[in-house]
This record gives sequence, C-alpha cells and structure tokens, in this order.
Amino acid sequence: MYGMVKDLYPICRSITGNGVRQTLRRIGEHVPLVTHEVASGTAVYDWTVPKEWNIRDAYIIDPSGRKLCDFKQNNLHVLNYSMPIHRKMSLAELKPHLFSIPDHPDWIPYRTSYYKETWGFCLSHKQLLELVEGEYEVVVDSSLEPGALTYGECLIKGESTDEVLLSCHTCHPSLCNDNLSGIALTTYIGKWLQQQGSLRYSYRLLFIPGTIGSITWLSRNEQAAKRIKHGLVVTCVGDGGPFSYKKSRRGEAEIDVASQHVLGHRNEPFNLIEWYPYGYDERQYCSPGFNLAVGSLSRSSHGQYDEYHTSADDLQLVQPEYLAQALQVYLDVIDVLEHNRVYVNLQPKCEPQLGKRGLYRAIGATHDGKSKEMALLWVLNLADGEHSLLAMAERSGIEFKAIKEAALALRDAGLLSGI
Amino acid sequence: MYGMVKDLYPICRSITGNGVRQTLRRIGEHVPLVTHEVASGTAVYDWTVPKEWNIRDAYIIDPSGRKLCDFKQNNLHVLNYSMPIHRKMSLAELKPHLFSIPDHPDWIPYRTSYYKETWGFCLSHKQLLELVEGEYEVVVDSSLEPGALTYGECLIKGESTDEVLLSCHTCHPSLCNDNLSGIALTTYIGKWLQQQGSLRYSYRLLFIPGTIGSITWLSRNEQAAKRIKHGLVVTCVGDGGPFSYKKSRRGEAEIDVASQHVLGHRNEPFNLIEWYPYGYDERQYCSPGFNLAVGSLSRSSHGQYDEYHTSADDLQLVQPEYLAQALQVYLDVIDVLEHNRVYVNLQPKCEPQLGKRGLYRAIGATHDGKSKEMALLWVLNLADGEHSLLAMAERSGIEFKAIKEAALALRDAGLLSGI
Amino acid sequence: MYGMVKDLYPICRSITGNGVRQTLRRIGEHVPLVTHEVASGTAVYDWTVPKEWNIRDAYIIDPSGRKLCDFKQNNLHVLNYSMPIHRKMSLAELKPHLFSIPDHPDWIPYRTSYYKETWGFCLSHKQLLELVEGEYEVVVDSSLEPGALTYGECLIKGESTDEVLLSCHTCHPSLCNDNLSGIALTTYIGKWLQQQGSLRYSYRLLFIPGTIGSITWLSRNEQAAKRIKHGLVVTCVGDGGPFSYKKSRRGEAEIDVASQHVLGHRNEPFNLIEWYPYGYDERQYCSPGFNLAVGSLSRSSHGQYDEYHTSADDLQLVQPEYLAQALQVYLDVIDVLEHNRVYVNLQPKCEPQLGKRGLYRAIGATHDGKSKEMALLWVLNLADGEHSLLAMAERSGIEFKAIKEAALALRDAGLLSGI
Repeated sequence: MYGMVKDLYPICRSITGNGVRQTLRRIGEHVPLVTHEVASGTAVYDWTVPKEWNIRDAYIIDPSGRKLCDFKQNNLHVLNYSMPIHRKMSLAELKPHLFSIPDHPDWIPYRTSYYKETWGFCLSHKQLLELVEGEYEVVVDSSLEPGALTYGECLIKGESTDEVLLSCHTCHPSLCNDNLSGIALTTYIGKWLQQQGSLRYSYRLLFIPGTIGSITWLSRNEQAAKRIKHGLVVTCVGDGGPFSYKKSRRGEAEIDVASQHVLGHRNEPFNLIEWYPYGYDERQYCSPGFNLAVGSLSRSSHGQYDEYHTSADDLQLVQPEYLAQALQVYLDVIDVLEHNRVYVNLQPKCEPQLGKRGLYRAIGATHDGKSKEMALLWVLNLADGEHSLLAMAERSGIEFKAIKEAALALRDAGLLSGI
Repeated sequence: MYGMVKDLYPICRSITGNGVRQTLRRIGEHVPLVTHEVASGTAVYDWTVPKEWNIRDAYIIDPSGRKLCDFKQNNLHVLNYSMPIHRKMSLAELKPHLFSIPDHPDWIPYRTSYYKETWGFCLSHKQLLELVEGEYEVVVDSSLEPGALTYGECLIKGESTDEVLLSCHTCHPSLCNDNLSGIALTTYIGKWLQQQGSLRYSYRLLFIPGTIGSITWLSRNEQAAKRIKHGLVVTCVGDGGPFSYKKSRRGEAEIDVASQHVLGHRNEPFNLIEWYPYGYDERQYCSPGFNLAVGSLSRSSHGQYDEYHTSADDLQLVQPEYLAQALQVYLDVIDVLEHNRVYVNLQPKCEPQLGKRGLYRAIGATHDGKSKEMALLWVLNLADGEHSLLAMAERSGIEFKAIKEAALALRDAGLLSGI
Repeated sequence: MYGMVKDLYPICRSITGNGVRQTLRRIGEHVPLVTHEVASGTAVYDWTVPKEWNIRDAYIIDPSGRKLCDFKQNNLHVLNYSMPIHRKMSLAELKPHLFSIPDHPDWIPYRTSYYKETWGFCLSHKQLLELVEGEYEVVVDSSLEPGALTYGECLIKGESTDEVLLSCHTCHPSLCNDNLSGIALTTYIGKWLQQQGSLRYSYRLLFIPGTIGSITWLSRNEQAAKRIKHGLVVTCVGDGGPFSYKKSRRGEAEIDVASQHVLGHRNEPFNLIEWYPYGYDERQYCSPGFNLAVGSLSRSSHGQYDEYHTSADDLQLVQPEYLAQALQVYLDVIDVLEHNRVYVNLQPKCEPQLGKRGLYRAIGATHDGKSKEMALLWVLNLADGEHSLLAMAERSGIEFKAIKEAALALRDAGLLSGI
C-alpha cells in the first residue's frame, strides 16, 4: 500500500481532470475498475458537474527574477481550480491571492476554489514574509473548460445483492493521509475481497472526488444506494494516530456496533465520534433523503491533526505499518459483517451436555471466564433468535472472533441452526 | 421588578384576605388582570375554601410594659391565620405559642396555621431567651370569618389556544424571594408578552395563594387545564444563588428539555432537580389526575437556602441584577417554546449547494465547528420531519438561538418547510 | 442455621447417593419435604441421570506404611465420583490422579469427575511435595451402580398459584459456604414462611444436586416452571464478604429490581453482577427455553473467594452472624415481592387534604424529605395504575418498607385502591 501511495503522490489531482484519470488507471491495475465520465454541466440534484480543470504549469517570478511557488516542485503551490492567468502585477495586487499558515511557517497550505472562478498560490509563511515590493510575473497555465467529472467504481459480487460500500475520495493533489492512504487501503481491500472464495455481501468500492463525486454517484444510482446495508468512508488511514470511528447518522447501525467492537478489542485507546454533518462523503450518504448506515473509520480524523491540508501530510506522515494496522482493522470489521448472523439453539431447555460432544473439560475445577467454553455457553444462552452474534459478543464482552468460532462449533455439533 | 418587590414588601398577605386584594390591584396596574373571589366554604376537590383572614394589629405587652412582636413593625411576628385573642397570661401559658429559630438567633421565622384554629407569635430566638417570668398581655386583632379566596388571572392570547402557564403564589407576607420575586417576574413577563406583535401560544398568568389557590383554580378550570401544553411555577427568582430547574413529573416534557437547554448554555453551573411531590404549586399541576408538563425554574430552590421562610428573606437578599438575569432566562425559555417547530428539508437527497445561495464560504479551508455554517448543515441534516429544532440543538450541542436562525435562513432560501 | 451447617458438615454428599438422602432427612425435620428418586439412566433433556455413587472408605498407604488422604478424616480427599480401585502402583503411576493447589499449599482442593469414569485423590500441596518414590497402595471402596438421583422439594402454598422459587444445591461434600449455607438458609426461610398467616405467593423450595438436579427437575416439571414468577438461587450466604446480586438473564425482572433495592438500602457496598451463563443452577433456569426470572443472591459469589472449592470453605469461614444477615436480606426481598402491588389514587386531581385525616402536621414549617409525609405524597403522586410500589420506591429513593406503609395508611384512609 505504501508503494502505491508513493507512486500516486506526485500526481496533481482535483475534483476533475487528468490527474484523477491517471490515478484511476493505476487503481485499475489492481482491481477491476469501471471508470465513469460525467459531462460538465450535468445536473446532479441541487448541483451541477463543474467544468474540467487541467493544469500544466504555474509559478511566480519575483522582482529579482527568481521563480517562486513552482507547481512543478510541489503541486500544492497552486490554488486548486485556479483560472489561467499570465500577467505582471505589484505585490499589493498579488497578496490577496496568496495563502499561508502563520502557525506553521514552513508548511504550504492546500486550498481550493471549486465554485468561484479565481486564481491563487499557496506558500510557506516564511516565504511570504520574504516577499519584497516590486513587479511580479504570475503564470498559471491551466484550463477550465467543459469536459467531465471522472470517478471509478468496482463491484465485487457476493452471495447477496445487499452491498457493503467502501468510499474514498480521489480529489486531493499531493496529500498522503487525506486521500492517498484511503485510495491505497480501499484498493488493497478490493484485492483481498477478490481472493476470497465466497462472500456473503457484494462490495462496492467507490473512488470519487469529495462532495461532488458522492452527489454525482448518488444521483445516478438511487436504486443501487438502496442495496447498501453497511458502509464506511475510507480516509486518513495511514498516519500514526489512534484509530477513530465516526458513527453514522443512525448511530446504532450494525456498522456502528461492529466498528466499535473491533476497535474496542484492540486494547488501545480509540476515539469514538458522534455523527455530525461535516467531514467527508458520509455527509452525502447520511443526508436525510438517504440516511445510509455509513460511518467513517480512520486513524486521525477529519481536520484533527496538525498536518491536515498542508504539505506536511506527506510520505513521512504516512507509514507502511500504520497502513497495515488499518487494513487489519478493516478486515476485522468485514469479518464481523460477513459472519454476524442470528442463530437458534436447537436444545433451548437447559444446557446441552457439551462434555459428551468433546466440547467441555472432564474434571470440574475453576474456570477462566473468557475461555472457549464461556463462548460456547454464551452462544447457547443467547441463541434465542433475537440476538445476533455481534449482540452476543457485546453482551458477553467476548471478542466477536471467539463467539463466531463457538457458533460454528455448535452448529457443526448440531446444536445450533442459522435463521 | 425590584421596585415592585419593594412596593409590595410591607403588605401582610395570606391565603385569603385584603393583603392579597391589595397586591392584585398593584399587579393589575401592569397587566390586564381578572380578579376572582371564591366564597369561603366552596368545595374544591377534597378541600374547602377556608374562612377569610384579616388582621389589623397584633403584639405582646411584657411584664415591664414593653411592646414585643409588634405586627406593625414586621408582619412575620404573627402566626399567619392566627385567631383573634386579647388576654393576659403567664410566660408558661404563652410559650407554646411562640416560634423562633435557635440556629439563626436574630431572624424571625415565618409560620402559618391555615387549617387548625390557633394563634401564635414568631420572634427572634435572642428575644425569646430574654423573656422573663410575669404576666403578658397578648393581642391579636384579627378576624377569621366567611369571606372569599381571591386570585388573579391574566390571559394573553396568541395564535393558538394552546397555553403556556406561568403560576406564582401570592400568599406570603413580607418575604421577598419566596413570593414577591415570582410575582414581579411574572408581571414583567406579562408586560413583555403584551408588547410582542404576535405569539404562537396563549399565555396564562396565575397569581394565586399556594396549594389552596392552585387547587381552587384547577377545580374551576378543568377544561382550560387541558389546553396547558407547557408551564412553569415562578418563585425564588430574585436571590443570587445559581439557577435551578425542577423537572415536571413527566420528566422529559418539552418544557423540561427547553429549560435545561437554556440553563445549559449559560456557561454557569445550575442545579437540575428531579421531580418530587413537594415544593410549590407544581404539586397540584402534576398530580396524577392532571400530570401537566409544569416544571419550576428558580434561582435557589424550595427550602434550599438559609433565609427561606424567615425575616432574612428580605430586600437585601433579592437584588435587581438577579431578577434581571432570571427574566432573561425565562424569555429565552419562552423563545424556545415559541420557535420550536418541526421542519422538513425540501432537498433531502445530498446537501443542497449553499454556496450559490450565499450561505457558504468560497475558499475551502478549516472550519469552526460551531459556526453558522455548522448550524445550517445540522438543520438540513436533521430536518426529516422527526426532529424539532430543540432536538437538533440538543443533538448538535449548538445553542437553540443559532439553530433557529439557521432554520429561518434556510426557510427563506426555500430549502426548508415547516410542518 | 449455623447448627444445621455444623450438623451436615461431615456428610459426604455428591450428585447422587446416600449422603444426599441423609442430608434431605435432616432438612425434612424442619420443613415438609417431598423426596424424589429418579432412576439412573432416565433421560432428562440432553442428559442422562448418572449411576448412583456411594463410598465407604478411601485412602493411600505410602511406601513407609503411613495412611494418606484418609477419606474418613476429610471426605474432600477423594475425587468425587471416583471409581472403586484397590491396587499397588508406583508414584509415577499415582501422580496423574493427585490434585493439589500450589497457591494454597495447606488446603485440600475439591474436585469431581461426574461424567468421566476415573479415580483420584485431593491433598494439600505440601503433602504432595513430601511424597517419595516407592510403592503405594491405593484404595477407593466405592460403588458406581444403577440407582437414583435424589432431590427434595417443599411447596408452601399461598393465595396465588404463582410461585417464588428458592433453589439450593445439595451435592457438595464438606463445603460450608458453597452448599451448606444455602441449604440452611433455604430451610429456615421455609420455616419462617410456614409461620406466616397468609402469603401472596406460593413458595417452592428445591434441594437439588447442581446442574443435573435442576435439569432433572425442569424436565419433569415444565408446567410448574411456568408458574415461577420470581426466583433466587441460594448459595454462598454464610461468609463475611459483601453481598452480591447476580441478575437474571432478563436483567430487569422484578426480582432483579427488588434484590438491588434491598441491598441498596443496607448502606453497605454490594456487588452487582450482570447475568452470565455460568455459576450455579441459574444457568438452567435462565436457559433460553425457560428464561425464568431467577437471579442469585449471595455474599461472596461463585468462584470469587479464595476458599472456594477447597477445604478452607469450612466452619470457620461461615459464621452465625453472616447467616443471620443473609436471612434478613432474603426476608426483605420476600417482603418486597409479597407487597409490591399497583395502586390507584382515588382522588387523583390535586392532593387530597391529608391534614383533616390526621396524616399531616398542623403548623407549616420546613420538612425532612424522607419522612412519612414524603412517602405519602410520593405514593399519591405515582398511584396512577402504572407504577408498582417498588417503582415508587426506586423513583423516590425511599426504602420500600416506608412506601409500603404509606400505601397501607392511604388505603385505610380510603384514598387508595389496589388493582
């Protein structure tokens, strides 16, 4: 995954344009991806697909002839979606178009202007302070013209047409955690899902520009959206922060319980975030007209780390081991979703005799409360057709994996039946 | 309000009698008040309207000829509802009729005997200890005769016949916080309500003697009581203690949530008191046969301050600034009740584009979670026809005022519709 | 009760056999007990009633001719349900049949092998370490043959056929807290119940071997089980630990609330244990096919004290005063069950005038919130046909006894009617 992040890092992505297409091509080398092009001007609910933005170069020549804010050195230097410009101007005229972060004088901020036509440059605050009076030559060699919005979609079919959605955004330029970590993780989950012999659910992986992308997908897929039973927005999964789970708007959906359960059994602190209508594409999936069971599972969360939307969200911030832990967490959540069924105890009156089936120790003695036997007893006790395995895991305090194994052993022993 | 408290302070009020009539006349100078007279002997549920008590003078002449417990100096000196008496007696005979507070030797207690015919005097414990053996002349120049129970009622009509009840008691003599502060605040809320161009609810202001007054009103107004959707018992609103909210018997009525919300956003500690069947007239409004949504919003609460029912509940304890803060809190609660409606998002699928309506900033950047934009997003997200604005405020943690303004802005932008 | 524990201590009990019969005979001297004999081989749900085990003697002769693990000195020395054996063997052959507790080198453990035919001895770890190489003579003079499982049952009839179940296990040899304390307490509750003039509920007292006993009883009494409205498993009630209540599987049944209420008003810390499917016979009563409202009220709880299942669970650990406190707690819980009715206020509109009925003080003054008057007011306020007396006690924070007395006083005054 880290290799993929590294590979995609230099590409200048935005909500439209060739950077996105180039990114999707690389993803398509790992999973079977369908790329969609939606024409500029297409109405998508209350929005309109914007003009397509492409950029070749951008820079400023200062009064001494030095090149500043060179797009080719760092694509964050240009205000994303900047209009083309090539003009000389005074520092006073230039300044309103410059963005920096006084609190982090060495970092370049990431700024966008998708829906208001303007231009601008981002630079370190240190560099901003060094600018002298004089004439500046400003060059943005970009185009903002009718074209398309591009997104990628990968459907991996399971036994049911019910779907699990994994959605990540592909619209940020050289930002690693906020963007590339989610793209890489989603891609590798896709690879893993393809390798599974059978899946209970179908899985829909979306690689879309933030906000306008999920709005576009939802407006074109209202029927498919109804099949989404569980979903996660995948982003900020590559930094070293503690894990975070932001609940869906529903708050107590199965994906909410499953994600909290998995994080709760890692024996490390994690952040549990109540739903709020800001952040990433869960804003759209959880709008009241859809209200999908979509949460967001990340490490550091939206806006809650210093490097967020700056040049410091780079290949140092994201590390292979952090991505690997996140992959494991996601696979554990998927394991819960895949196996969280409701069973019925076929011998519900008193406990069945586990000993004669080799499921119980022979010599009575004291007992470790979290052992396999306790998992067996909990499953038998709660298998009344009203408790899912996840509900049993939550009530017993036993990890889902152990409850699942107990249920499978009891099913194999003829004591349990799925419904 | 403080001027009104000062003006009403010297009057000797009781549950019946001319002190109440005099008090109601003063209130009627500010709000349109209907005064009711209910004849002694009238059955009101399990009770009977008592004889009317009036008093002209009361005092004790001690063995040295000094006048003690002079009613004209402080009307608390006489046991409220004392029978007339004019007799000489020994200290031993007098003593069972004397009441003092050993813990506060300088204060005169306030005592009543409404339903048992007796007489008595209240005095400071210091004074009690100074009494010498000898003959005392005891004078209570009162009358306890068939007459009426008097109460005042003010109905300020709004668009709906649904009512908000504000009830305060008018039966205490020279006690400022417990009695007069509530009378003054209720009166000034009435003045404010009259000045409003339009009101959603009708407001019923009751100025009644405690217990027997609310019982009398309820017994004569069973139909009107059904129109009461929200209510507050107004008392102890003039001291400097932290605010207190005592929940209605229902516990989760709109008035309960609204009051807690307003107090919770003042950034000062406040006391939240679970319902209990003692205190003021909420006892009657919340009796199981009515179970009205009536709480009590005060500063110090019933019996929970040292000066309670003593001569120290005076014009020093109550101060103008404390009354003013209480008025603001009540008006804020009324603002919640008036505007707490349910709205429906007219574009519920994905977020509408706020930017093109001038409701959203142009340059994407980080974000203050409590800003106006967040209030807009919360309202849009929760306007599903199931959340009231107050429920949105509670879930978002944003103050009701900001949620209300967001809802009005969205309604004006055609994005929201009231139901 | 302590005398009974002392009397029963030397008897070697097991899940079947003459030790149980001898124990039941003694119990039958106090309460009218029906003894049931269920033949070995009888199918009881998924289980089979085992062969009957009886033992006359058991010991080991060490290489020096000394007698070790003498059953006649302490019946814990023999692995309960040991097969007969009389053979000489090396220490190496003997060792897998020896059980000790390294952490408590002076204590003899209690071990069983009901469902796997083997033999063994239990001894102190100190003694185990002293064993030398050489030839040992091993003697278990027992029999394991078709016979019966024996249990005792005592039904004390009340006005209703609805039942309260008190169940204790009778299968442990010389263990005082875990076994005998429960037997003695249940017996004495039975004596007390018989002395009552009238009872609301019928009470069923079961003296049964653990697990197989409750399974056997349930399989033979499915109809009777439906009449059980409340139940407690009685065990570990004689040690000096704090009280513990383990909730029924339902978690919020009346027995759960009643037990917590009683323990909560003792002004001593107690342990509240969520349901889990291990422990004593509540495992069977709360199996999903029955799901009875049966909790377990003990002092130290299952497995949670060092002396559990060792020779240190003896006549020192259990003390008369601890048993007496436990009896009081059980009688208090029974008092709640017997009197926890729903009443209706016959004058629900406003408070009735308590004063004219002699239920209220005459001179108005301040007030102790927990007094009799408060109990009266709470009962009147909540007697809406939806609150039981226990619910009133819980909501008011007033002890059940005071609420009960208030309800009876109000009923006698004609203000309350039972439903």
